[in-house]
Amino acid sequence: MIRVSVLYPHMEGAHFDWSYYLSTHIPMVTRKFGAAAKTTSIEQGIGGGAPGAPAPYVAIASFIFDSVPAFQAAFAPHAQEIMTDIPKYTSIEPVVQISEIKG
Amino acid sequence: MIRVSVLYPHMEGAHFDWSYYLSTHIPMVTRKFGAAAKTTSIEQGIGGGAPGAPAPYVAIASFIFDSVPAFQAAFAPHAQEIMTDIPKYTSIEPVVQISEIKG
Repeated sequence: MIRVSVLYPHMEGAHFDWSYYLSTHIPMVTRKFGAAAKTTSIEQGIGGGAPGAPAPYVAIASFIFDSVPAFQAAFAPHAQEIMTDIPKYTSIEPVVQISEIKG
Repeated sequence: MIRVSVLYPHMEGAHFDWSYYLSTHIPMVTRKFGAAAKTTSIEQGIGGGAPGAPAPYVAIASFIFDSVPAFQAAFAPHAQEIMTDIPKYTSIEPVVQISEIKG
């Protein structure tokens, strides 16, 4: 199984519209992914390693898929629609991490 | 609930001893955290957003706790032992993210 994480780095002065993200963007993405995405998890950054430090990431969305091809098959047909929705809630360019789940 | 993630950034030339990490470090950490850590997940980076791009993070460990105070209470007494174990498997300085799980 793999985890695809979409991480939005903390940036001074950047905005992130949590209301749009949670009520519109994420439901659209999970609808597009359909049953291929086994689980969806949304995190809001609240801190970093040092006391009082900002979280490195404002938001992290992660999705579990059976495999990289399963993710690609679910994402590719909707990639453009998903990507062009991002500027509607944030000016932050997200970082994508694809991982194999080891345990 | 919160998720504490320990992310090891990809660095050219850095080493990461997966055998030690999985067989010694992570079991030690989960033993120290005890029942306070509801779940533990280990990821190995296999790719990034662009085709053929390296994963931003070589490894990510994440742990779910009930709250930040629950994490702090579980981590603080063992912080030094956990931190001094890191150079035994990698030269990478990890990034720590503490997030509230929104869904």
